[in-house]
Amino acid sequence: MKRNIYLKKKSLDEAKGIASNLADLIRLGAEKIPVIRALGRVTAEPLFAKISSPPFHCAAMDGIAVTAESTYGATEDSSRVLTVGEEAFFVNTGHPVPPGMNAVIMIEEVHQIDPERVEIMGAAHPWQHVRAIGEDIVATEMVFPENHKITSYDIGALLASGHQEICVKKKPKVLILPTGSELIEPDEVNLSEPISKIIESNSYVLSHLIFEDGGEPVRHPIVKDDFQKIREALLSNHEGVDLILIIAGSSAGSEDYSRSIVEESGEVYAHGISMMPGKPTLLGRFKDRPIIGIPGYPVSAIMAYEELVKPILYQVIHLFRLERPRIKVFPTRKIPSKLGTEEFLRVKAGKVGEKIYASPLPRGSGIITSLTKADGIIRIPSLSEGLAENQEIEMELLRPLEEILNTVVMVGSHDLTLDILANLLGKYYPPVFLSSHSVGSLGGILALKNGICHIAGLHLLDPDTGEYNFSYIRNYLKGIEVKIFSLVDREQGLIVQRKNPKGLKGLVDLLQEDISFINRQKGSGTRILLDHELRGLSIDPGQIKGYEKEEFTHMAVASLVSSGIADAGLGILPAARAMNLDFIPVAKERYDLVIPSIHVGDEKIRKVIEAVRSKKFKEEVLRMGGYDVSRTGEELL
Amino acid sequence: MKRNIYLKKKSLDEAKGIASNLADLIRLGAEKIPVIRALGRVTAEPLFAKISSPPFHCAAMDGIAVTAESTYGATEDSSRVLTVGEEAFFVNTGHPVPPGMNAVIMIEEVHQIDPERVEIMGAAHPWQHVRAIGEDIVATEMVFPENHKITSYDIGALLASGHQEICVKKKPKVLILPTGSELIEPDEVNLSEPISKIIESNSYVLSHLIFEDGGEPVRHPIVKDDFQKIREALLSNHEGVDLILIIAGSSAGSEDYSRSIVEESGEVYAHGISMMPGKPTLLGRFKDRPIIGIPGYPVSAIMAYEELVKPILYQVIHLFRLERPRIKVFPTRKIPSKLGTEEFLRVKAGKVGEKIYASPLPRGSGIITSLTKADGIIRIPSLSEGLAENQEIEMELLRPLEEILNTVVMVGSHDLTLDILANLLGKYYPPVFLSSHSVGSLGGILALKNGICHIAGLHLLDPDTGEYNFSYIRNYLKGIEVKIFSLVDREQGLIVQRKNPKGLKGLVDLLQEDISFINRQKGSGTRILLDHELRGLSIDPGQIKGYEKEEFTHMAVASLVSSGIADAGLGILPAARAMNLDFIPVAKERYDLVIPSIHVGDEKIRKVIEAVRSKKFKEEVLRMGGYDVSRTGEELL
Repeated sequence: MKRNIYLKKKSLDEAKGIASNLADLIRLGAEKIPVIRALGRVTAEPLFAKISSPPFHCAAMDGIAVTAESTYGATEDSSRVLTVGEEAFFVNTGHPVPPGMNAVIMIEEVHQIDPERVEIMGAAHPWQHVRAIGEDIVATEMVFPENHKITSYDIGALLASGHQEICVKKKPKVLILPTGSELIEPDEVNLSEPISKIIESNSYVLSHLIFEDGGEPVRHPIVKDDFQKIREALLSNHEGVDLILIIAGSSAGSEDYSRSIVEESGEVYAHGISMMPGKPTLLGRFKDRPIIGIPGYPVSAIMAYEELVKPILYQVIHLFRLERPRIKVFPTRKIPSKLGTEEFLRVKAGKVGEKIYASPLPRGSGIITSLTKADGIIRIPSLSEGLAENQEIEMELLRPLEEILNTVVMVGSHDLTLDILANLLGKYYPPVFLSSHSVGSLGGILALKNGICHIAGLHLLDPDTGEYNFSYIRNYLKGIEVKIFSLVDREQGLIVQRKNPKGLKGLVDLLQEDISFINRQKGSGTRILLDHELRGLSIDPGQIKGYEKEEFTHMAVASLVSSGIADAGLGILPAARAMNLDFIPVAKERYDLVIPSIHVGDEKIRKVIEAVRSKKFKEEVLRMGGYDVSRTGEELL
Repeated sequence: MKRNIYLKKKSLDEAKGIASNLADLIRLGAEKIPVIRALGRVTAEPLFAKISSPPFHCAAMDGIAVTAESTYGATEDSSRVLTVGEEAFFVNTGHPVPPGMNAVIMIEEVHQIDPERVEIMGAAHPWQHVRAIGEDIVATEMVFPENHKITSYDIGALLASGHQEICVKKKPKVLILPTGSELIEPDEVNLSEPISKIIESNSYVLSHLIFEDGGEPVRHPIVKDDFQKIREALLSNHEGVDLILIIAGSSAGSEDYSRSIVEESGEVYAHGISMMPGKPTLLGRFKDRPIIGIPGYPVSAIMAYEELVKPILYQVIHLFRLERPRIKVFPTRKIPSKLGTEEFLRVKAGKVGEKIYASPLPRGSGIITSLTKADGIIRIPSLSEGLAENQEIEMELLRPLEEILNTVVMVGSHDLTLDILANLLGKYYPPVFLSSHSVGSLGGILALKNGICHIAGLHLLDPDTGEYNFSYIRNYLKGIEVKIFSLVDREQGLIVQRKNPKGLKGLVDLLQEDISFINRQKGSGTRILLDHELRGLSIDPGQIKGYEKEEFTHMAVASLVSSGIADAGLGILPAARAMNLDFIPVAKERYDLVIPSIHVGDEKIRKVIEAVRSKKFKEEVLRMGGYDVSRTGEELL
């Protein structure tokens, strides 16, 4: 390969070209393995049949084997008698037809006169009920070419053609070296103590991806951010390995080490690639084998693997790599993106009406759940400044399309009972998947208005009437006919630290000098409730420290209280309970599911309503505490 | 489940209903396993985060941790000095932000005055360069619901949320019992001796399918056709097993045993299903667990598994079973099918012009290669009498569509060098797949005429001129512009038994009383050559014994000669060599590739021509013997 030193950031296409050159450094050997262990392996040579299948002329029926010629002329009226052992031989299905015989007469059509004689009432034609030698496979014919991936079916053809062992390509061996002083091995974590290190999970995710792509991962334990230790780990483990992945901890320091170490024993061809996530990826050669510096953030690590390492594996195994299937989707909102960088946007998708809508997940490269929750990936090309709302665009599928088509899209306020609902649907009402997006109640209303969701979850207090939801629906959803179902009545209150050390009793106490509050985002039902209550108490929100800090879910609020960042936030009881926090009731509110009438008849929506009305749902909700289910599932208005 | 005795043949839909009832007999337990062994397993309970991720506020950059408030007012012109250890703390990426601090300033923007003091030139905003606790996952939130299949990505989210072990469903354990006295274990076959038993491969194919579908196969060795032995094998192995598959040998006798044995310890709900292949399938209950009697022919066994056993596994694991993707195809010819039976027709497919054509493979249930070579399956419904030519119909994909789109369809005469070509294409010219259909040279011409192939392989002698191919192309392909490339010149001759025991010297000797001939099918170039040569010698074909017996390939002819069924057949030298037979040259002929001009520019056709012209192709062809490659790859006319 060319030995240039690259100095500036590479485009993803350039990086792919370099990866492909690096793949050429790998010389994959072959190995003989038993056929019955060969599923998914790739042939290293064309395989020719060692024997024919069937290996002899065999009976396809139980009966007698005869020569067709000896039966000619036999009819109902003029039967013929054959001598057993000379003209006729009893055979069972699958057994060889005796030499010289060329037809089988079914046992049902044979009349045995005595042990020596049988009578037949009809003639046989040549090769009747005989499976001829080689009918399926002829000895010496090519059964599979080189570079063929063995399937379960293929194992049948290989065994039948006399193969017991076959020659397949060795699996490319991939050394995975996680580095970073901030990391801890997963099995060294003690959950009963506070955790001060990041759990190393990238190496395990990469190991499994490599396994799925036909490679053999070899994981090295975590190496600290220490030049000599990283260098030593590479030098003493590279032998016998086809490819090396060195995962930087999230620390920039260790990445610099990688670069220097690679330069010392080989060459760096790229460091810094115009992709997001995945920018800090390094491509190089270490002791004459490819080495890839994988970024430390989980999503970056996976993107670097999928765009640059996986193609190397496929090229080396000589397998045709399939693109993920693509479908056309419509983004639910405008998504700006950085010019000059190819972005991999993770999205959730669902079909509402005639279109499949894609809703972006968090874009941070540290958010692994943006991949585990994703239905697909939208590539925003490097020459684009982003996506316009409702612009048709391609999405690569991460889940089967059928699952997406069976997904109910719910947008709106966050409630913990939605997890219970999703779980019940998967368990008792398959195939229905619930995809819920926490954007606040007003966001839910807007999603209904824009036709991009099946259900909105709302708890919007009308400060003028004290009623929930109805007036908002009337005002915002003019011309859209909807049905409203009660999900739960729930209690909102102040989530405060365990044992309430600051002695809070209600909203008024938020004015205390030593109290730091954490708020919910504008447009959320909880925020509207808070503002309504503050107004009732004539409290100026500007006087509350932290009123301007916003979180998007009850759990995020509870989490910040739990960690001591905030002293209090408004939220629901189960969120406080989940984090083992105290709860000071403030108000009771109605949380409803609002569904456009055109969707109510839809099979999957019907199942959601059925699940909400089920006894199991109510029982599990009551078990969480903080909920009243007496109206759950009722149609309101 | 209902305890009816079913007496008559069931429709496939009825049988599926019974299988679904049988699945309800299975109670699958759960087991705790390490997360890093959980790929592909299915959660037995919802999994909640044990810790948040990140588990603490951590630095997203190397730098100093500060309180944002302490930096307000700092600018280029008015820098601020902070005391290390009090107002500022050095942190690396991924490390915890010290208590009380709420922002990180990048190390590049920090000027260290001395060990105690740092200077900053700008203010930090709160939470700048800090990954907040729970940014990705909040402790106690549901990470995955019950019935979720774990992916490689998921392993990252599980480890990050504090899971080291998780509770997954046990794999359904499936006992596989192959029966039949005609069977032999694959590893007991001695290839150096004649084989008189059928190699048992069904159990291994089923084992791998079960493994792929998330079950745990337990294979029992072959049991002979003996009522007591089969009964004993079931009685002593059913404990601890969720599901039993008893594979009848191909013998009808053993199937009868299965039925009686099941009736003795349970009940038979169906025996005989209106599907083809797969009719003899049995569905029953044995000692309170489902038992499926699987037919002995390989394709029947697989169809019975896929239609009736696989759905049981998915139902029991509670996984959504994906249908195979379907595409629209056009059959290349009329395909009659039996009314009242659902037929699974295996087909090869390729896109020629704008349509994807499907060409049927052999329909026999004993032909495993009809599945290993298939690109898809066409279901012919039980109420249909078959498919019309060129009738649009759905095909279930067995291979990825992308591979089918990259497949070159070749129809016509059979030649052994096509295997070499297919192999080279896969190895050096990916992604191109060659699919060749042996229907004889005239069949190839007709396929070109009908526009259902990219290439025809022809060796058609014009008896009037002694020329090959040109006159046929002129006469049959009026209005279709084609290019003609020489593939090889090859020798045709009599394939006779080793050492030519009957002392044949040429075609004239076929008239001998003791000679049995095997012919090629009408329309094949070899048949035309034979007739031409016989005419030249004034031999009456009616005088040749076996002239009316037809085979479709050179290898099939050689195989029949090898097994002693025939004494001679006309064919090519490498077919004789492959079977270690003798060869008496008769004539030399030209074998050409004929390609419509509209396809010649197509990338994949270009690659085929390139491969034919490659040195490697010619070398490998010469190694087979019987070929002249001096014109190989040349464009003729």
